[in-house]
Amino acid sequence: MIRVPAEPVGRVSDAWRQCVGTGRIELALRRDYQDSLALLQREIGFRYIRGHGLLSDGMGVHRPYDQGCFRFVHHSFTYVDQVVDAYLELGIRPFLELGFMPEDLASGDETVFWWRGNVTPPHSYPEWADLVRATLRHLVDRYGLDEVRTWPIEVWNEPNLPDFWQDADEAAYHRLYEVTARTVKEVDAELRVGGPAISPGADDWLERFAEFAEHRDVPVDFVSKHAYTSGPAQHVPFGVHQTLAPAHELLDQFATPRDLLKGTRLAGLPVHITEFNSSYRPDNAIHDTAFHAAYLAPVLAGGGDVADSFSYWTFSDMFEEAGVPTALFHGGFGLLTHRQVRKPTYHLYAFMARMGPELLARGEDHLVTRHPDGRVTVLAWAPVDPTGETPGPDRHPLRLSLPTGGGYEVFVRRSTVDEEHGNAYTAWRHMGSPRSPKPGQLDILHEAAEPARAHRRLPVRDGRTDLDLTLARHEITLVELTPVDDETPPWWDEGRLLGREPS
Amino acid sequence: MIRVPAEPVGRVSDAWRQCVGTGRIELALRRDYQDSLALLQREIGFRYIRGHGLLSDGMGVHRPYDQGCFRFVHHSFTYVDQVVDAYLELGIRPFLELGFMPEDLASGDETVFWWRGNVTPPHSYPEWADLVRATLRHLVDRYGLDEVRTWPIEVWNEPNLPDFWQDADEAAYHRLYEVTARTVKEVDAELRVGGPAISPGADDWLERFAEFAEHRDVPVDFVSKHAYTSGPAQHVPFGVHQTLAPAHELLDQFATPRDLLKGTRLAGLPVHITEFNSSYRPDNAIHDTAFHAAYLAPVLAGGGDVADSFSYWTFSDMFEEAGVPTALFHGGFGLLTHRQVRKPTYHLYAFMARMGPELLARGEDHLVTRHPDGRVTVLAWAPVDPTGETPGPDRHPLRLSLPTGGGYEVFVRRSTVDEEHGNAYTAWRHMGSPRSPKPGQLDILHEAAEPARAHRRLPVRDGRTDLDLTLARHEITLVELTPVDDETPPWWDEGRLLGREPS
Amino acid sequence: MIRVPAEPVGRVSDAWRQCVGTGRIELALRRDYQDSLALLQREIGFRYIRGHGLLSDGMGVHRPYDQGCFRFVHHSFTYVDQVVDAYLELGIRPFLELGFMPEDLASGDETVFWWRGNVTPPHSYPEWADLVRATLRHLVDRYGLDEVRTWPIEVWNEPNLPDFWQDADEAAYHRLYEVTARTVKEVDAELRVGGPAISPGADDWLERFAEFAEHRDVPVDFVSKHAYTSGPAQHVPFGVHQTLAPAHELLDQFATPRDLLKGTRLAGLPVHITEFNSSYRPDNAIHDTAFHAAYLAPVLAGGGDVADSFSYWTFSDMFEEAGVPTALFHGGFGLLTHRQVRKPTYHLYAFMARMGPELLARGEDHLVTRHPDGRVTVLAWAPVDPTGETPGPDRHPLRLSLPTGGGYEVFVRRSTVDEEHGNAYTAWRHMGSPRSPKPGQLDILHEAAEPARAHRRLPVRDGRTDLDLTLARHEITLVELTPVDDETPPWWDEGRLLGREPS
Amino acid sequence: MIRVPAEPVGRVSDAWRQCVGTGRIELALRRDYQDSLALLQREIGFRYIRGHGLLSDGMGVHRPYDQGCFRFVHHSFTYVDQVVDAYLELGIRPFLELGFMPEDLASGDETVFWWRGNVTPPHSYPEWADLVRATLRHLVDRYGLDEVRTWPIEVWNEPNLPDFWQDADEAAYHRLYEVTARTVKEVDAELRVGGPAISPGADDWLERFAEFAEHRDVPVDFVSKHAYTSGPAQHVPFGVHQTLAPAHELLDQFATPRDLLKGTRLAGLPVHITEFNSSYRPDNAIHDTAFHAAYLAPVLAGGGDVADSFSYWTFSDMFEEAGVPTALFHGGFGLLTHRQVRKPTYHLYAFMARMGPELLARGEDHLVTRHPDGRVTVLAWAPVDPTGETPGPDRHPLRLSLPTGGGYEVFVRRSTVDEEHGNAYTAWRHMGSPRSPKPGQLDILHEAAEPARAHRRLPVRDGRTDLDLTLARHEITLVELTPVDDETPPWWDEGRLLGREPS
Repeated sequence: MIRVPAEPVGRVSDAWRQCVGTGRIELALRRDYQDSLALLQREIGFRYIRGHGLLSDGMGVHRPYDQGCFRFVHHSFTYVDQVVDAYLELGIRPFLELGFMPEDLASGDETVFWWRGNVTPPHSYPEWADLVRATLRHLVDRYGLDEVRTWPIEVWNEPNLPDFWQDADEAAYHRLYEVTARTVKEVDAELRVGGPAISPGADDWLERFAEFAEHRDVPVDFVSKHAYTSGPAQHVPFGVHQTLAPAHELLDQFATPRDLLKGTRLAGLPVHITEFNSSYRPDNAIHDTAFHAAYLAPVLAGGGDVADSFSYWTFSDMFEEAGVPTALFHGGFGLLTHRQVRKPTYHLYAFMARMGPELLARGEDHLVTRHPDGRVTVLAWAPVDPTGETPGPDRHPLRLSLPTGGGYEVFVRRSTVDEEHGNAYTAWRHMGSPRSPKPGQLDILHEAAEPARAHRRLPVRDGRTDLDLTLARHEITLVELTPVDDETPPWWDEGRLLGREPS
Repeated sequence: MIRVPAEPVGRVSDAWRQCVGTGRIELALRRDYQDSLALLQREIGFRYIRGHGLLSDGMGVHRPYDQGCFRFVHHSFTYVDQVVDAYLELGIRPFLELGFMPEDLASGDETVFWWRGNVTPPHSYPEWADLVRATLRHLVDRYGLDEVRTWPIEVWNEPNLPDFWQDADEAAYHRLYEVTARTVKEVDAELRVGGPAISPGADDWLERFAEFAEHRDVPVDFVSKHAYTSGPAQHVPFGVHQTLAPAHELLDQFATPRDLLKGTRLAGLPVHITEFNSSYRPDNAIHDTAFHAAYLAPVLAGGGDVADSFSYWTFSDMFEEAGVPTALFHGGFGLLTHRQVRKPTYHLYAFMARMGPELLARGEDHLVTRHPDGRVTVLAWAPVDPTGETPGPDRHPLRLSLPTGGGYEVFVRRSTVDEEHGNAYTAWRHMGSPRSPKPGQLDILHEAAEPARAHRRLPVRDGRTDLDLTLARHEITLVELTPVDDETPPWWDEGRLLGREPS
Repeated sequence: MIRVPAEPVGRVSDAWRQCVGTGRIELALRRDYQDSLALLQREIGFRYIRGHGLLSDGMGVHRPYDQGCFRFVHHSFTYVDQVVDAYLELGIRPFLELGFMPEDLASGDETVFWWRGNVTPPHSYPEWADLVRATLRHLVDRYGLDEVRTWPIEVWNEPNLPDFWQDADEAAYHRLYEVTARTVKEVDAELRVGGPAISPGADDWLERFAEFAEHRDVPVDFVSKHAYTSGPAQHVPFGVHQTLAPAHELLDQFATPRDLLKGTRLAGLPVHITEFNSSYRPDNAIHDTAFHAAYLAPVLAGGGDVADSFSYWTFSDMFEEAGVPTALFHGGFGLLTHRQVRKPTYHLYAFMARMGPELLARGEDHLVTRHPDGRVTVLAWAPVDPTGETPGPDRHPLRLSLPTGGGYEVFVRRSTVDEEHGNAYTAWRHMGSPRSPKPGQLDILHEAAEPARAHRRLPVRDGRTDLDLTLARHEITLVELTPVDDETPPWWDEGRLLGREPS
Repeated sequence: MIRVPAEPVGRVSDAWRQCVGTGRIELALRRDYQDSLALLQREIGFRYIRGHGLLSDGMGVHRPYDQGCFRFVHHSFTYVDQVVDAYLELGIRPFLELGFMPEDLASGDETVFWWRGNVTPPHSYPEWADLVRATLRHLVDRYGLDEVRTWPIEVWNEPNLPDFWQDADEAAYHRLYEVTARTVKEVDAELRVGGPAISPGADDWLERFAEFAEHRDVPVDFVSKHAYTSGPAQHVPFGVHQTLAPAHELLDQFATPRDLLKGTRLAGLPVHITEFNSSYRPDNAIHDTAFHAAYLAPVLAGGGDVADSFSYWTFSDMFEEAGVPTALFHGGFGLLTHRQVRKPTYHLYAFMARMGPELLARGEDHLVTRHPDGRVTVLAWAPVDPTGETPGPDRHPLRLSLPTGGGYEVFVRRSTVDEEHGNAYTAWRHMGSPRSPKPGQLDILHEAAEPARAHRRLPVRDGRTDLDLTLARHEITLVELTPVDDETPPWWDEGRLLGREPS
């Protein structure tokens, strides 16, 4: 029996909800995307959203034209405004990522992804600066300076990988960063700019980025990197299998910037993990499972200790880096499938969103918080085996003595997600894995995605309630305990109801 | 093991969805009422709705005024139109009940209910006829003759009770009926008029109604009566307790008009049970329970054999005959509480709405149907003890061999309502019976009202699936079996997923 | 030409939007009411809403019962919560009016209105205090103390009239006030309580109310009265005709509390005009006309000088004091008819809601304001003759020189409401005054209720734009002038478009 | 004065609403697109929608993969289903156009449009047939055979132009057509297939298509072609200017298939004009003007005489053939701009949707119809000069004597669109042509796009009403005349209202 203290040991960080990832920005024009984002914001409520492709051709921003023998560039924000309007209307702000290169400004024709984001430097840095300047000025004009100052501006994505930045040319990235950052500050000195948005395993870039910033006296307002834990991919058609490192390695990856940048000019800056997930592949079925929610639970519970934000990559399966998905469940990153079926990891986030601000306890399989109104909330999760060698334990007991205040009884509401409950993937498999489910099948999947709920009452003794939980395999569970204020009238005798054991 | 035949034994009657009852018509102006009706129609879909008070003063129809020393009457349809517009927009039609008496047309001041419906005959039959004529002409003008011809028109409510008709004066009722019916036919000969809308235990009125109709050559297009099974009320504040007769007595009550009217002029007419329920009291907690759903299940399954419609009294707890309800759960008739919490009996109707048109089997604890697309659907219910002497069995087994076609496997979806699941009343009791739940408590009640769902696969052998059910106390359960069309690609090995038993 | 100064002469008061009146609170349960309120809040945005009947029997609050030979009282908030939840959801707060008397608490059976509000003192002041206490405690419990402290609490309505308070007994009112106010403060000392809510022509009550408050040391946090300007009623069936006093008499009525209470204990308290209108009759067609909007325009423009709020009686024609309305247009108080047809006075409020915070000028036929973004907004109105002797001038010129900033041109948007435009009443008359319009007719009325719009450009010279307006009979007009930021590309030649005069 | 006969001269064709065009099908995933389509369907109601790119890579249908050294193709309908689900939900059906070529099935890399539709023949005709077969089988499986049989299936788009079909190779098209048509019929013999979807000026293809069909005995269920009337383009950046042929040339183009195919095997088949507009350019500002509505009015009025459908190209400016639009008004084809601003031509369609089924008269500037309820509806339009030499007359008189039945008066509702009214383009120009309007500017544009409305009464004499219209430059106007059923009560004297001329 773990005795949870009655006095808070701290505040619950909400670094987990600071930001969430998205497929390329252009997808934000879609209805399915917006429907998913609306649901997400209603039930979870992220603060920022980050994705690639703001300046790619699909957004139609950079528009050269000729007139009278001269070349001019028009900057056009038809779609940028449709996207940002939608974000703000849905209560989420853009975490701007400047990239990729418009084709007419690119110095080469190397592209990344099915949707062909150009990854080469600009053929003209002044024209790139014009593009950055025009974009930010437009946003400031439309949304107001106070608003835009709250939007972080990240320069490019994973320049340490040749897939994302030609030859992974570090000097070229530094040049791009410098031109961009100076242009940002020219628009307004309080706009916040940062980088280098590196992928895992390239932390040496951080140190050189700090040196560069110091040497060139370049503005940096935050530092960003990514984190993933998957091993090598074994391919099958339209999918992969990978083992994972233990979840705490994600926390270790989150932690390196603060460690490495100590003593540099960048020490103490906000650290944003602008992408994280288990597997970096948008076609790994692990993303669809209860295993995945249980695997990530300790990361959400603890990530705020070591980073200012960590952004789940991505909120929706509306994502096309490897092409258009070929089945409803296809191992996409999304918390939600197309058509808004909630995955177990979605529920992990939704459960986190129901935790209170006071931290009462945190253990390797639980997080206990309290709300200002006295409700005590427990998030618990089963252990998982990320090596694939065992399926993990099929039962995991957890006993907590919780400080539930001065009343006589608490109302207990439990929400469960495991292999059988809150698990549309399992239902979809039973159904025969229909690639494009029909309306009736979608109804069932939405229904199957609902966590199982149970409600009961427990006694309070000496201000405490004993909670005895058994978690099923890969279960995550949310338990909320609310003091009962009993309004049953004195004359009421439930035992007189037909069908009751006489009392 | 019950072997369900592969060939249908008949069609499933939908007499159960022909009509539903409502609190007085004026309540249809309310938002909570309309929200409830919208939900009801989306998930169940009744055809007609019947309630009291169309002509009562709250609807503002009969409006005498004086001009130049003379008395005139204006007929006004401001609210009637708002109500009927809303009904039609929500996909339900009015089953018109003509009553009660406008105060200025009444011959006395006796009223019924908290809301004071006047139950005396008109002081002027010609003025009553004017009122009926004007109302029907207006409806025909606004909604079209084809539409209004589909609306049954019932004359008054329960005239055999002195509470509802002064002195329960049968001759006076016959006079009212005759004046009304002739006026209806004068507007259009194909409008459908009927009565006598009697309460249980007064079937002798039926025979005399037939004699009267024959003797006076009065038009009668349908016959109506009510059915209830509760015993005497034991009162507590804002509530009652009653025992019930067995459910089959409801079916017996439904059946009497066809029997009694054989050989009379009214033989063969449609029989509408224009109200039925267990208890006739709007403050009997039994209406809120799983017991109630299990009690009524055989009535819904079998009522169509003996009547053309039987109208559940009523769809919503927005109902004020005994005053404004003092708590969310207060024993109201409603399938839904205020604010749209679904009760177990709501689910009974929602389950019926998912049955197929082909009747495969009907037993004392089950109904089996098939849809045109081959889905087999089973509704099963546990036995109940309506005497209150025992709580009923806590487990009830049912084994069915179902004809599920030519495939290899079926997808099985089960929806369960019992004492613990799909049961907001139980959660509300655990919560401390909050009389006016706060928003967070309402969220929990809506969640608790969802049936439990389970999904799995079962094998098909020789075109049959064995279904082995154990019903909990007072459970009603819906099981849908759909042939699996497996689209799992040949290369997929679920066992390679992390967290699975290697296959 | 009136030269409007470039520097603001003050702030525009928003006393006009502090509060709006409503038919009895129970009507707030209705869908039409809520639809109307939603529209109102979207387009105008009032802060508070005040109506009668919070404690009347229709709301079901005061519920005596017997148990074991004793009488108890249950306080029930089923409907109160539905109403207040809806208000807050729609962004408006209750201005609580405590009344009328529950039947079981009343000392007599005198009632007011078609809906029978009991206007007699309580038979037991302790039981009345229990009712007040229970109600406020419940509201504090449900909505929070911080919220409820912002809701003014007014004791009763127009006690100076025998129709509303038995015998207009002033001493009895003072007693009721004292018991109520002390009970309010017992719940929380910072709840705000006030009165005496008198009708016009009874200002002597104010002085005696101040004396009473001082003498008995009774808490008073605000002073309230009503204002109307209509003369004697000439009746026709379902309607009246009345002449009106000039509009400035409303302002005079608003002003008396501050004047009369100078030097008393109540000096300096907020003054709330908790009802005002031209005619106090809910069946005077003047409420439906453009005349009415033009008549009230100077009141809205100037009322904030002399009172803290003045609450238009009432926002919707969903109002039943004289019974259910018998035609769509029936002279109801509403800014909106049933089914949300906007009347001219609605537009007056909607135009006020588009004025800026800086007051540039106010005259007898105009109000000029500026927004922070530089837009200049003009509300202008034609003069009216409230005596009925003349129809008023058919043309009214107004020329303004407006300070429109440093650009070259302004975009001018004009919205017009007069006898022909923005005037559903006129269209309804042309249509044949259909009492309960059919859906197609309602569409036309909604369309006819839209103000006429015109858009053009005007030049700016020396930072000024000359605006030359001619107002039609009974016109109110809103003109918004926005500096043009011309983005027309240099190559564009509009004259090359087909159908244009070549440029 | 034109005397319109009282007896109908025929039925009004609704060929104009049979079909409407859309930007590439993938755009149907977007929210702005669906919002526009929802508005269109609510106010106009087209039956079918046709666009390019169903099989292009953006839809993700044709998905080759390798397994065990072999190449397979997966057919995937993730997005096809999202699109078609949305269409059907919005009450419109797909007019399927099979094309363009998936990259992995293409024999070359020539593409058309900014979005790169591949226009080369398949490298494998069997694989193309597989694709067609799989697509149709999937649609039949999901939506039902009865439904899909109502969807026309057109083979490719404008194969007579080398931009759309490599080398405009007619023999290759015939081969593609034959393979496709036989595959369609193999799925179901009652699916309807057709072509050749030629652009204007290539009617010789029709004759050879008929010969080919006969010679090869290939199924053809309908014949399709396109129609445009613009002359050569004079380019400016992001735009063009063109003169137009007179509108009757569109009708001439519609008429050729029936003429040319007389006596061939294809005689008597349905003729679908699967695209038409004035200019074929998506950047010609003429599409945004009142001129355009007046220009097309006689085409909508008369097109049904010569073709079974003529599909306006396109319903929305959400269209990307020439890239992402750079300004709200940019000369796009759309009836609606991005964000649902209605253009004048939208209103032309909306006016047509309000015409009745009985044709009373048709002239060069008017169309007169009657509804079953007796309403007479007049659509009138001003003459235009498509040569650009003159702006067209600024006033155009039209006098009609209309048969309006047996009453005394008619209610007249007039809706006007011209250079000043119902014309958001004019307001946008006054506003300074804001390329991406801010929310407040969009509100003004939506408001400016509303037609001007006027309502009055006219007398009926001898069953006729004289309607005296003066049309402004480029005006289209809709006049609806409804017999007045006057419900004004006998006691009502409008002249007693304040502000009226005493009567």
